[in-house]
Amino acid sequence: MNALGRHILAELYGCNSAILNDVAKVESVMVDAALEAGAEVREAVFHKFSPQGVSGVVVISESHLAIHTWPELSYAAVDVFTCGDRVDPWDACRCLAEKMQAAEYEATEFQRGNRNRLLAEKVS
Amino acid sequence: MNALGRHILAELYGCNSAILNDVAKVESVMVDAALEAGAEVREAVFHKFSPQGVSGVVVISESHLAIHTWPELSYAAVDVFTCGDRVDPWDACRCLAEKMQAAEYEATEFQRGNRNRLLAEKVS
Repeated sequence: MNALGRHILAELYGCNSAILNDVAKVESVMVDAALEAGAEVREAVFHKFSPQGVSGVVVISESHLAIHTWPELSYAAVDVFTCGDRVDPWDACRCLAEKMQAAEYEATEFQRGNRNRLLAEKVS
Repeated sequence: MNALGRHILAELYGCNSAILNDVAKVESVMVDAALEAGAEVREAVFHKFSPQGVSGVVVISESHLAIHTWPELSYAAVDVFTCGDRVDPWDACRCLAEKMQAAEYEATEFQRGNRNRLLAEKVS
């Protein structure tokens, strides 16, 4: 891998709306996904919005996982950013999709900080 | 806009390394960028890593701003996610680049939750 980080943006469709609207459950699913991918959890902050929806982030030593939910549409926007080679962001992503009971999801991985890694390799 | 959210991934190059390694300064820059874009700040969590680097997230009512810094490369990976039409993520992004004293930056906007918005419009 030539990048400093891997960043997955995932669209989770057809999720369980009750889970998406339950801030404690969303937090627990997010922390579990981080742990299942082997990440070290540093901090988690979650908010329940009125009348519905949850936003939250898990800061991990390897970067972060973030989620924003639209229970009324059974939809969640997720992103998983990891640096280093130890944690695979796809493990967290698949875990999240499963635990949110997504009927389907679309996810794309972006490499972050490519240019700097190349520069760093050149000067080292 | 047909999406539920707008998500900018930005690569900030040639930043001020002293700022990138100062957790209090990074937090203040991130919160300022959120406020300058007109967002409502809910919570902020930041971590300083050893020997260097800062990770942090500002949760806003409109979604989030996240940053991960590599002071040794003068590089920061930023993402700004906003939902609704009131806050323009580019305002936060440009503000961040300026306050980090980035020599240059590359940023790309992704629309999030497009399909659901279309479905929601169809059934309403």
